[in-house]
Amino acid sequence: MTTIKDSVHDHIEVTGVAEALLDTPEMQRLRRIKQLGTVQLVYPSANHTRFEHSLGVYHLASRALSHLGIEGDAAAHVEAAALLHDVGHGPYSHNVEEVTHRHTGKYHDDVEELVTRGTVGSVLDDHGLDPKRVARLVSGDAKFGQLVSGELDVDRMDYLVRDAHHTGVPYGTIDHERLIRELTFVDGELVLAEGNVQTAESLLLARALMNPTVYAHHVARISKAMLRRASEQLLSEPDIDAHELRRMDDYDLLVGLRLNPSTADFADRLATRDLYKRAVWAELSDVPGSLLDADHETIVGFERDIADTAGVPAESVIVDIPSRPSMTESSSRVMVNGEIRQLERESPLVQALRTAQEQQWRLGVYAPEGVTETVGRAAADVLGLDVSGALVNEVRGGLNTTLDEFE
Amino acid sequence: MTTIKDSVHDHIEVTGVAEALLDTPEMQRLRRIKQLGTVQLVYPSANHTRFEHSLGVYHLASRALSHLGIEGDAAAHVEAAALLHDVGHGPYSHNVEEVTHRHTGKYHDDVEELVTRGTVGSVLDDHGLDPKRVARLVSGDAKFGQLVSGELDVDRMDYLVRDAHHTGVPYGTIDHERLIRELTFVDGELVLAEGNVQTAESLLLARALMNPTVYAHHVARISKAMLRRASEQLLSEPDIDAHELRRMDDYDLLVGLRLNPSTADFADRLATRDLYKRAVWAELSDVPGSLLDADHETIVGFERDIADTAGVPAESVIVDIPSRPSMTESSSRVMVNGEIRQLERESPLVQALRTAQEQQWRLGVYAPEGVTETVGRAAADVLGLDVSGALVNEVRGGLNTTLDEFE
Amino acid sequence: MTTIKDSVHDHIEVTGVAEALLDTPEMQRLRRIKQLGTVQLVYPSANHTRFEHSLGVYHLASRALSHLGIEGDAAAHVEAAALLHDVGHGPYSHNVEEVTHRHTGKYHDDVEELVTRGTVGSVLDDHGLDPKRVARLVSGDAKFGQLVSGELDVDRMDYLVRDAHHTGVPYGTIDHERLIRELTFVDGELVLAEGNVQTAESLLLARALMNPTVYAHHVARISKAMLRRASEQLLSEPDIDAHELRRMDDYDLLVGLRLNPSTADFADRLATRDLYKRAVWAELSDVPGSLLDADHETIVGFERDIADTAGVPAESVIVDIPSRPSMTESSSRVMVNGEIRQLERESPLVQALRTAQEQQWRLGVYAPEGVTETVGRAAADVLGLDVSGALVNEVRGGLNTTLDEFE
Amino acid sequence: MTTIKDSVHDHIEVTGVAEALLDTPEMQRLRRIKQLGTVQLVYPSANHTRFEHSLGVYHLASRALSHLGIEGDAAAHVEAAALLHDVGHGPYSHNVEEVTHRHTGKYHDDVEELVTRGTVGSVLDDHGLDPKRVARLVSGDAKFGQLVSGELDVDRMDYLVRDAHHTGVPYGTIDHERLIRELTFVDGELVLAEGNVQTAESLLLARALMNPTVYAHHVARISKAMLRRASEQLLSEPDIDAHELRRMDDYDLLVGLRLNPSTADFADRLATRDLYKRAVWAELSDVPGSLLDADHETIVGFERDIADTAGVPAESVIVDIPSRPSMTESSSRVMVNGEIRQLERESPLVQALRTAQEQQWRLGVYAPEGVTETVGRAAADVLGLDVSGALVNEVRGGLNTTLDEFE
Repeated sequence: MTTIKDSVHDHIEVTGVAEALLDTPEMQRLRRIKQLGTVQLVYPSANHTRFEHSLGVYHLASRALSHLGIEGDAAAHVEAAALLHDVGHGPYSHNVEEVTHRHTGKYHDDVEELVTRGTVGSVLDDHGLDPKRVARLVSGDAKFGQLVSGELDVDRMDYLVRDAHHTGVPYGTIDHERLIRELTFVDGELVLAEGNVQTAESLLLARALMNPTVYAHHVARISKAMLRRASEQLLSEPDIDAHELRRMDDYDLLVGLRLNPSTADFADRLATRDLYKRAVWAELSDVPGSLLDADHETIVGFERDIADTAGVPAESVIVDIPSRPSMTESSSRVMVNGEIRQLERESPLVQALRTAQEQQWRLGVYAPEGVTETVGRAAADVLGLDVSGALVNEVRGGLNTTLDEFE
Repeated sequence: MTTIKDSVHDHIEVTGVAEALLDTPEMQRLRRIKQLGTVQLVYPSANHTRFEHSLGVYHLASRALSHLGIEGDAAAHVEAAALLHDVGHGPYSHNVEEVTHRHTGKYHDDVEELVTRGTVGSVLDDHGLDPKRVARLVSGDAKFGQLVSGELDVDRMDYLVRDAHHTGVPYGTIDHERLIRELTFVDGELVLAEGNVQTAESLLLARALMNPTVYAHHVARISKAMLRRASEQLLSEPDIDAHELRRMDDYDLLVGLRLNPSTADFADRLATRDLYKRAVWAELSDVPGSLLDADHETIVGFERDIADTAGVPAESVIVDIPSRPSMTESSSRVMVNGEIRQLERESPLVQALRTAQEQQWRLGVYAPEGVTETVGRAAADVLGLDVSGALVNEVRGGLNTTLDEFE
Repeated sequence: MTTIKDSVHDHIEVTGVAEALLDTPEMQRLRRIKQLGTVQLVYPSANHTRFEHSLGVYHLASRALSHLGIEGDAAAHVEAAALLHDVGHGPYSHNVEEVTHRHTGKYHDDVEELVTRGTVGSVLDDHGLDPKRVARLVSGDAKFGQLVSGELDVDRMDYLVRDAHHTGVPYGTIDHERLIRELTFVDGELVLAEGNVQTAESLLLARALMNPTVYAHHVARISKAMLRRASEQLLSEPDIDAHELRRMDDYDLLVGLRLNPSTADFADRLATRDLYKRAVWAELSDVPGSLLDADHETIVGFERDIADTAGVPAESVIVDIPSRPSMTESSSRVMVNGEIRQLERESPLVQALRTAQEQQWRLGVYAPEGVTETVGRAAADVLGLDVSGALVNEVRGGLNTTLDEFE
Repeated sequence: MTTIKDSVHDHIEVTGVAEALLDTPEMQRLRRIKQLGTVQLVYPSANHTRFEHSLGVYHLASRALSHLGIEGDAAAHVEAAALLHDVGHGPYSHNVEEVTHRHTGKYHDDVEELVTRGTVGSVLDDHGLDPKRVARLVSGDAKFGQLVSGELDVDRMDYLVRDAHHTGVPYGTIDHERLIRELTFVDGELVLAEGNVQTAESLLLARALMNPTVYAHHVARISKAMLRRASEQLLSEPDIDAHELRRMDDYDLLVGLRLNPSTADFADRLATRDLYKRAVWAELSDVPGSLLDADHETIVGFERDIADTAGVPAESVIVDIPSRPSMTESSSRVMVNGEIRQLERESPLVQALRTAQEQQWRLGVYAPEGVTETVGRAAADVLGLDVSGALVNEVRGGLNTTLDEFE
């Protein structure tokens, strides 16, 4: 048994197969992948990694299993899946996965490959575990997979508390122990026991408050978009392919971007926090609906057109269109009067939070500091934005964001 | 200058008139009044007092004033008001004030009396402050009174964080420093600066989560109702009047209830946590609307009728009808696009929280453990409750409450 | 099973006999006894009680037993003893126990009486536990009694962390989980496992830093001495005896002191924090050695003589002579190279801390504010203090204390 | 003004020249240098950086200056020095600076160069500050330099608390606000005001407990030694020189080590936590005194001889001889009875801690897992260690270290 000291959960006991998995290169690599990627450029203390988060998820999974009375083989598989759940993450966590997915194909296949082959697969085999079963649990399949990936999974319980601890933003401080104690299986579904509508709401609200303040802070979005663009550029070079890139850690990618002449400028800007600024920051109502469904090619086309119109180099324009707001936690299930109910049926907050999310949604166009005004005007033109809605940065900048001071 | 170590704000500097006010018997009495009254019977660590809370409110007021650039005489008056804002509280905080108010008259007159006369009045005078002006600020009047008592007052910023620290329930952990930094006066109104819709929402949500979990937990409500009933009884004795009772501290009242034969049983039950249980726990929709407007006499009549019907002594039935849900924070004001807007106009959450509050509203009828079933049935009959809605405790018990385990 | 939310240990599970014990009047009384008595007059947030501390000790005992692999009957007895370990405390914790012990006899007999008779005894009996065995464990007897009362007991692990949380003084923040994980029994002795000399030192150091800053702060000592004197006076009245007094809670005692004319002045001073001041604050080297062995009668004689000499009423002089410094934790045992060693043999810190404690030792003579100088001189004379050592308050006041500001 | 959210000090306000300095590449580079280097291999959450620490030191310096009443030009210089104090750190903080210093020359010259030239120098100039004066303050020279680098500097106040927060080890949790409030200048010396012997001791003790548990944990020492050896090797390559290496960040260095064939193995071992183990772990008394003064050449010679004797490749042996124990904090100054006294004269703890440090001192010889026994025997032979003292790892391994589990 290994005991590891964690900044969030204090002592974490790691036993059996989990102890062996910790030593695999696949898990050790997560030490060099920041949990929140470029959010660190907004919250300088947010340097925690996928490694410690994985330990935390493993720890909460163990506690949940123990409360649920699940032991033996089933528990071992779930614990392994909890520890491994992020092993497929590329460098800078979610920041560049969109790029690598586009270039490589599906997310889940990759996890299966990572979990069933290589050192991880061998370790699982050696300890009598079925790698394919573990891979399915990581993907949230099977009854117990709901604990690892689902509306009430321990993943989000750990990251909310951990992100709060390391950013200093208190909103994520949920009562994770309460949540874990109230988890139960009814008819094969993971639900919160009777009397926990508010417990479920608290998880939802923590997520809703952390989202604009931390995860989708405009500086984090800008730097993420720059990183994505640079990675895209890097993949157009002959020496590197997407499969390779997604196995990098943050160190490899940042140095890779520095060393490559075509991406050195982006690398330098990210390293010195000399970021693009908002040329456009448009609300949902100001944006033609069709834009939300634009594919990568179309967006690249827009960027080129905007750059042409504005008379700036192509790399000076980044169009950042988030997907439509969604809210996984809204379908979490709670027992009410002896029946399984979806939270959104029980809680008036769910619909309100959905509306709030739509209000917070912003299309961004980013450009170097000197040219934001030109690019903004060109973008409004090319994208068909409702300029009367005052969407150009100079006019609306900074509204509805929460930590603007550190711009 | 005095520096006081506080469990929540660390070092609190107290200067000038505030230092002298601290030494008055009126302020020192707050050391013996628990901040959360009988909530301590649910959360055993919740023994913090109005004294330390008053220090906290003073501290946050000082910080807010400093950020707002308010100095000198105006600041001194606000700081004094912040420190004194709870000086009029009776024993067990809000638990028995309904009783004493009914017997004595208005709340505000009393504060004015306390602040303008006695030692407090002298101290204010001696330091060149106008006691009447301080009293007005305590009541939330005047421009700067909004800092002490209003939708965005520092009172609620302190108590949310403090109650979270001492109960162990994390929901109240707001970013009070952020709130204070964003306060500003526009056209004489205290508002949050541009870009703080979510900051305002976070305050509202913290309150919304703490409410059912802590402040209105059914065990807290039951014990509070028992304390109220016992105090009512005590006031019917010849030796004590309401003016005297409201100047007591928790120690006086509890020992007073013990020593008086007619209240000794209630005192003993509270002291040994041998509490009444829920005979009825009815939702808003199951309750005739007229009940919500019932005055004290009417409710006493109901209690007598229920006791008669159930064949139990009069003191075995307590009817507890909370007032209609309200939400002060919903009218807090935020700058949006250069205009002052009420939060409820900007945030879809406000209406949702209002709905949630209505769903959480419960009429309670409480009785000693052995007779809850009989009393429940009698109460449904006397009060005209919709029994099909399954409002009797045995059927619906514990639903929608958050920490039921420690019943 | 009951789950209780605690400000220090979060969720505490209480099961079996412990759950039933919680409901006894003997345990519920601890809700009304502050953990740190009059320390609350220095640290206003220090209002935590023996009740929540007892829960914490129970919780840590359960964890320790689980790590040690102790189950069943033995564990149940230790857990009961942990929960009950403070049940014999009088009002204001240790503040007046010296008085009641002098008047009633031994401490341990009393615990045995409380644990073996009354409701507690019945509950233990009903759950198949042997009350005498529990009483022995409370007293630290028997092998497992070391967990409850000894150099490495869970009592001190809880109170250090809890007192830190509630005073705001960080020094007590030990790594209690580490300590518990390293406990082991070797040859019937409770020791820390190999490699834990520093773990043992950390406990010792936390205690050494909390002592002068919190537990023996001069304001806490003065108010405690005043409370002791008042209680002594109360016991000289015909209506009350020491057996009765020690079963009181803080509420009973404070109100009792208020209602009795001969003690009303002390009660009022304590309630309004209008405390005596230091007339003498003398170091060990300035004090004749014989004074340290003076019994109660002798000290009362001194007080009378000093009052006479100074020409002040007898109740205006309190002589406070702490016992010789001791350090329980110094004999805690640690495994070193396979042998059980006492910490003081292994750690050079132990002797140094002993020296530091002697340096911090102070004899105090306290008197009302106006007469400290006269009383100080009289005391130096009567007690034979070395005045050249500048022991009178005016000269040396405040040295070596840590939070003097809040005098 | 910029406000930055910090995990330790909450909101940090950055104004004036400090705000401009933050944006320099020299400061931004500190975002990519971990505060504790390889300690992260023991405490996985310890990923905090020199950047956030620098912000924290700046913040505490500002508070101290404000308490001391120092304003204007003097304050601006001290604040700039506080923010810049770590700007000269090489990659992995202190881990490889020994190597770069040997190859480049002095530490201080370098800081002067960094602070007076390049972007930092220009920014200081532009804001009317004297870069040379700032450089002197960074080095601890001049009266106010004591705040930045000295026995009572704000640097150690920040790192103790920050390292505690991020490792999860509570020992560093000092009362930094208390320390800052008690700082004062007497005769040009920075001292703690009267009554603060224990305050000074608390700083010393926090350091004394963090040292073996965190900073000098054997796994941290081994990985640091491996990193040093690898960097040494890298510098023997033609492409890179020490001046270049010391301007790298952690990312550059780790990737640099990976890409270079002669260091790829070390890089891989560090990245996968496949570390060398202790072949020897010898106490001070078992080590010939002359070894403590051995220079680099001599140690390299020893390593070669040991490898030859053991029949293993040269890179398989690392000899790690820490310098003699020292304790900066022991000479911190405190006012006692109106005189400035060095803490070591006042506190019996200082000498005891010195003795404890000597007891904790260990000479280490490290080697790959399979060959530790052979290497250990060879090392005992070559280094002339007292083998009777049982210094080989197999016999004494793990004694006196605090978190051995995670080996």
